[in-house]
Amino acid sequence: MAPAHQVLVAIIGKQTGAGGVGKSFLNQLKALATKRPSPKLNLCYIGTSSKVLYSSDYAPLDMDTCLDSLATSSQSTLNLDGIVDYLGKAPSKVIMVDNTSNQAIAEHYPHFLARGINIITPNKKAFSGSYSLWKDIWTATHMSGAKVFHESSVGAGLPVISTLRDLIDTGDSITKIEGVFSGTMSFLFNSFAPVEGAGGKWSEEVKKAKELGYTEPDPRDDLNGLDVARKLTILARISGLPVESPTSFSVQSLIPKELESCSSGDEFMQKLPEFDSQMEDTKAEAAKEGKVVRFVGKIDMAIKEVKVGLEKFDKSHPIAALKGSDNIISFYTERYGANPLIIQGAGAGGDVTAMGVTSDLLKVLLHVG
Amino acid sequence: MAPAHQVLVAIIGKQTGAGGVGKSFLNQLKALATKRPSPKLNLCYIGTSSKVLYSSDYAPLDMDTCLDSLATSSQSTLNLDGIVDYLGKAPSKVIMVDNTSNQAIAEHYPHFLARGINIITPNKKAFSGSYSLWKDIWTATHMSGAKVFHESSVGAGLPVISTLRDLIDTGDSITKIEGVFSGTMSFLFNSFAPVEGAGGKWSEEVKKAKELGYTEPDPRDDLNGLDVARKLTILARISGLPVESPTSFSVQSLIPKELESCSSGDEFMQKLPEFDSQMEDTKAEAAKEGKVVRFVGKIDMAIKEVKVGLEKFDKSHPIAALKGSDNIISFYTERYGANPLIIQGAGAGGDVTAMGVTSDLLKVLLHVG
Repeated sequence: MAPAHQVLVAIIGKQTGAGGVGKSFLNQLKALATKRPSPKLNLCYIGTSSKVLYSSDYAPLDMDTCLDSLATSSQSTLNLDGIVDYLGKAPSKVIMVDNTSNQAIAEHYPHFLARGINIITPNKKAFSGSYSLWKDIWTATHMSGAKVFHESSVGAGLPVISTLRDLIDTGDSITKIEGVFSGTMSFLFNSFAPVEGAGGKWSEEVKKAKELGYTEPDPRDDLNGLDVARKLTILARISGLPVESPTSFSVQSLIPKELESCSSGDEFMQKLPEFDSQMEDTKAEAAKEGKVVRFVGKIDMAIKEVKVGLEKFDKSHPIAALKGSDNIISFYTERYGANPLIIQGAGAGGDVTAMGVTSDLLKVLLHVG
Repeated sequence: MAPAHQVLVAIIGKQTGAGGVGKSFLNQLKALATKRPSPKLNLCYIGTSSKVLYSSDYAPLDMDTCLDSLATSSQSTLNLDGIVDYLGKAPSKVIMVDNTSNQAIAEHYPHFLARGINIITPNKKAFSGSYSLWKDIWTATHMSGAKVFHESSVGAGLPVISTLRDLIDTGDSITKIEGVFSGTMSFLFNSFAPVEGAGGKWSEEVKKAKELGYTEPDPRDDLNGLDVARKLTILARISGLPVESPTSFSVQSLIPKELESCSSGDEFMQKLPEFDSQMEDTKAEAAKEGKVVRFVGKIDMAIKEVKVGLEKFDKSHPIAALKGSDNIISFYTERYGANPLIIQGAGAGGDVTAMGVTSDLLKVLLHVG
């Protein structure tokens, strides 16, 4: 039988792969479990879509060997209801860590929460999907007392969601949120339209970013703007706007109309250079005003508007001066007045994303520990 | 008798005065108490050095009328041991809010904590005083389980301390912390040595800042650098450096040697113009390199060095580009690599300072609620 004063952790998601959050998180969890005497953090379940390792009597899995054991495990995978049932019957408090970007798992959150299972996750899907799923999630936490934290769903480990919630919970009013919310877009525009120098051709910068691993395997998944739209949806909803979905507001796609029908990412990358003049025009137009172009997201609470797309910025503007693949998020509020509260730094990467997940874990432990 | 499921709040500190944290906090507490059904937040004690209002049976004070009642109260003030004893015998969990900058109260924290009384405060004194007081405070929390949070002691409501703790608690290593930690110094140097334009004379900028309320009543209390040194002491200790005191490392004072013996702030302000050429030389020297001068604090973990004083920055550096009285704090860590995690925004003012206190209150409620 499991010891009494423990908190059980279940992890769903790929545990391997360069830059992956899974492996980084497991390492951070291990370090935390070693450091904290109480409550004891024990792993009871770790699984991917094809492999699973769990203890039917909730006895702790060995965190040092669990990845090897998972690789050779012959245990039958559980469907989502099966996982909910297994975790719901645990003899201790449970935290389910969803390190996937899976839509089906996200849609199952209300069932986990209704059974008192706490959730932490970098998965954007649950909070940027349909508005009814959003409401179901918070209703379930309200009814069961289970907690859900998702700091890493926006800006990875940067304290974006916790800061926004602190502002609101302490009684401030958000007037505007503005920023660069994608490491990929940041990297692309910092090279394509740098503050100093001419910058490269658009298609070449996209190619370079893809080769360096800054884009998704298919760069169209970044260039369509949906990733940024999802993050804006989350922040807008927390701020009080009942945004219906990430496609219910204006999102500018950087995929040329003529290339929308490409059947593969490779075909897209091959044809992209033919459309370099479009982006070149945008850059030149900004340069004429002494400005640079950036791909930003904006939430204007006064007119209840959410917008994602290209905008021009003065070269001295913090958004123009961004470096590498950094994110920047500016919170304009009633209390902070004209000068916003700004958070800036790396917004992607396995280690910093896992950091957001682990700091959420520490917050859940305040509740359940 | 007080109801069972409540948390009692005791407030020490001036509740009035423009820009004061006390009045802003009381308003935020009132709003929070109205919004949160459970645990019920009740005020049992509110006091200054000369006036006090408390309920001997711990019945809730009326938050709407407590300031009027305090002004006309004839209750005898309690000494610090008396307050500890009163709060230590409370029938519910207690949070003591120290909104003063008082040294004696700070030195009494271990006694409060030993009796299980939680503390939240913007008061820097306890955490930047002697290293033995620092150790006594954390030992007391460890023994009793009581919590102490002090977000507003650095950067007011900006999430500086919580972010630093999150970085460390999730296993990151701090390599360097650098920034502008004083709203006064920020305002002074943004006007004295702006990125564009010549800026004013030093003594005139100090005079203007004083008139606008950006300095302490006696500007020497800002110009001696001690306020920044105290904040650096706090951050360095959290990062793992056993800094003995805020005077145990290099702190550059902007009070000219010849004016150290002035008997009053007025005499100092009168004589300051005679020394404008010193600061003018510093500005000119930076300008020759195309830079601007700023008053910054720096913690270098590799060489275990803490430093406070003037430094030159490229005009494109985020520290040079600061506006108004904003603070900026850059955390360089192993995980974040070359591009730091940056927090920027107003680092002073009653409302935003109170926000830090209230967000700490929400954190303590996670523990005791």
